[in-house]
Amino acid sequence: MAPTDRPVTENTFYVRYVETDAMGITHHSNYIVYFEEARSHYSRVQGADYADFERSGYWLTVAEVHARYIVPTHYAQQIAARCWIEELRSRTVTFGYEIVDAATKQVCVTGYSRHVCINHAGSVTKIPESWLSTMRHGLP
Amino acid sequence: MAPTDRPVTENTFYVRYVETDAMGITHHSNYIVYFEEARSHYSRVQGADYADFERSGYWLTVAEVHARYIVPTHYAQQIAARCWIEELRSRTVTFGYEIVDAATKQVCVTGYSRHVCINHAGSVTKIPESWLSTMRHGLP
Amino acid sequence: MAPTDRPVTENTFYVRYVETDAMGITHHSNYIVYFEEARSHYSRVQGADYADFERSGYWLTVAEVHARYIVPTHYAQQIAARCWIEELRSRTVTFGYEIVDAATKQVCVTGYSRHVCINHAGSVTKIPESWLSTMRHGLP
Amino acid sequence: MAPTDRPVTENTFYVRYVETDAMGITHHSNYIVYFEEARSHYSRVQGADYADFERSGYWLTVAEVHARYIVPTHYAQQIAARCWIEELRSRTVTFGYEIVDAATKQVCVTGYSRHVCINHAGSVTKIPESWLSTMRHGLP
Repeated sequence: MAPTDRPVTENTFYVRYVETDAMGITHHSNYIVYFEEARSHYSRVQGADYADFERSGYWLTVAEVHARYIVPTHYAQQIAARCWIEELRSRTVTFGYEIVDAATKQVCVTGYSRHVCINHAGSVTKIPESWLSTMRHGLP
Repeated sequence: MAPTDRPVTENTFYVRYVETDAMGITHHSNYIVYFEEARSHYSRVQGADYADFERSGYWLTVAEVHARYIVPTHYAQQIAARCWIEELRSRTVTFGYEIVDAATKQVCVTGYSRHVCINHAGSVTKIPESWLSTMRHGLP
Repeated sequence: MAPTDRPVTENTFYVRYVETDAMGITHHSNYIVYFEEARSHYSRVQGADYADFERSGYWLTVAEVHARYIVPTHYAQQIAARCWIEELRSRTVTFGYEIVDAATKQVCVTGYSRHVCINHAGSVTKIPESWLSTMRHGLP
Repeated sequence: MAPTDRPVTENTFYVRYVETDAMGITHHSNYIVYFEEARSHYSRVQGADYADFERSGYWLTVAEVHARYIVPTHYAQQIAARCWIEELRSRTVTFGYEIVDAATKQVCVTGYSRHVCINHAGSVTKIPESWLSTMRHGLP
């Protein structure tokens, strides 16, 4: 369940037709993309835009991803992707996610992803302090 | 250029990271998806929701698609997808598209797609009159 | 590491350009798709084609997916996707995966996915005995 | 129809589950990806690997793409993607495509894509002579 002791952002969107599969539901791989878009939204809202982060010479590479599928979603369904920070360390960050129906708030998919900060040469490095402090805002 | 004598809808969204490629730009195949989402939005706005259309036993299968790439777009760029009906006939419909930067309105990609109405048995059939009349609304 | 006490299949393919992202590497969501293609290949090789399984009225819906990213891959790199059965029960099956460089055999990504058998009405049901016995072949 | 006066390459693959949609067929946007993979294969076979081309400082950016959909394809269907060069000029190249059923050779989708050579600074430039001469091999 989404935590109540820290910022949780929510971006809403419609399931695209291309994202459905022959089962008539949203293909499970798309939630990994929804997670990514949710953390883009999170950092945008927090004032730590990931596009800027990247331009300043860093990447948050994905080290691990996990999803649990509870209820399927369908074409044109309006979805909300909740995102929060599970853990923020000097070199790593873990985001948590809930994909819910935008109207009923039923939880459809949950998950998390763990990221490691690297520079554009590919070396693991500390997350730059400015980005870190913005992202730390509101965390317990 | 988007026509001025008929309805043109516009839905805005951010380019997703997954949609970029190793050139650092939005991969060209994604615009075909943006076109699709634009016509979903068009029919939703016009009151002829495509999800309902499908549930009533029909599909608008894609017969042809064309895209012309003018200016590349990038991750996190806010994009607007313009959509209009080029031609509406009893069994076919052609949509036109412009993908523009949401802020500057610079046209990045243009295109069209041609669709044929089929029933769920796969036979070409007339577009149901109720959907047709709703979609015809505002056309010259 | 891939187990040695049971069948492990391997299908090889090239990373597609569309699968790369602005980091210049294969986007992490694509490995979820490689996993899927690997289990399609596994069942095909074992003689329990998933397309037939589906046509006979069943689906193996995805309940959980996990991926760990170790080494990035790149456009045009030849990859092998290893797949095996972790656990097979009357209603569920768990597949394990390793994505390796086809030439060097370096392990790039590992993961697993857990599936539940449902019928086309959406109810959880026993995996049909014929498919189960074919898939059980070679398991300890 | 694929021309008979020049090289035509053919790469075969299975339709992936993720590539299907709620119509139960391969989503039309995937053929744009099949086209891309077909021209990757073409250049690989001709000895003018696109990955090397890119590493040497150039890109073939996509200026235009067109697809005509004739017969749908389905999950696990084995497909062959035929590719050839329609026109090769000093700065541009146009590829033609046919997606056929690998067994019956029925033509399912046809198309073309037009590309412009740019350097990594984004300027239109001449295709390097070495790559051009390799690609010109076998053309009338």
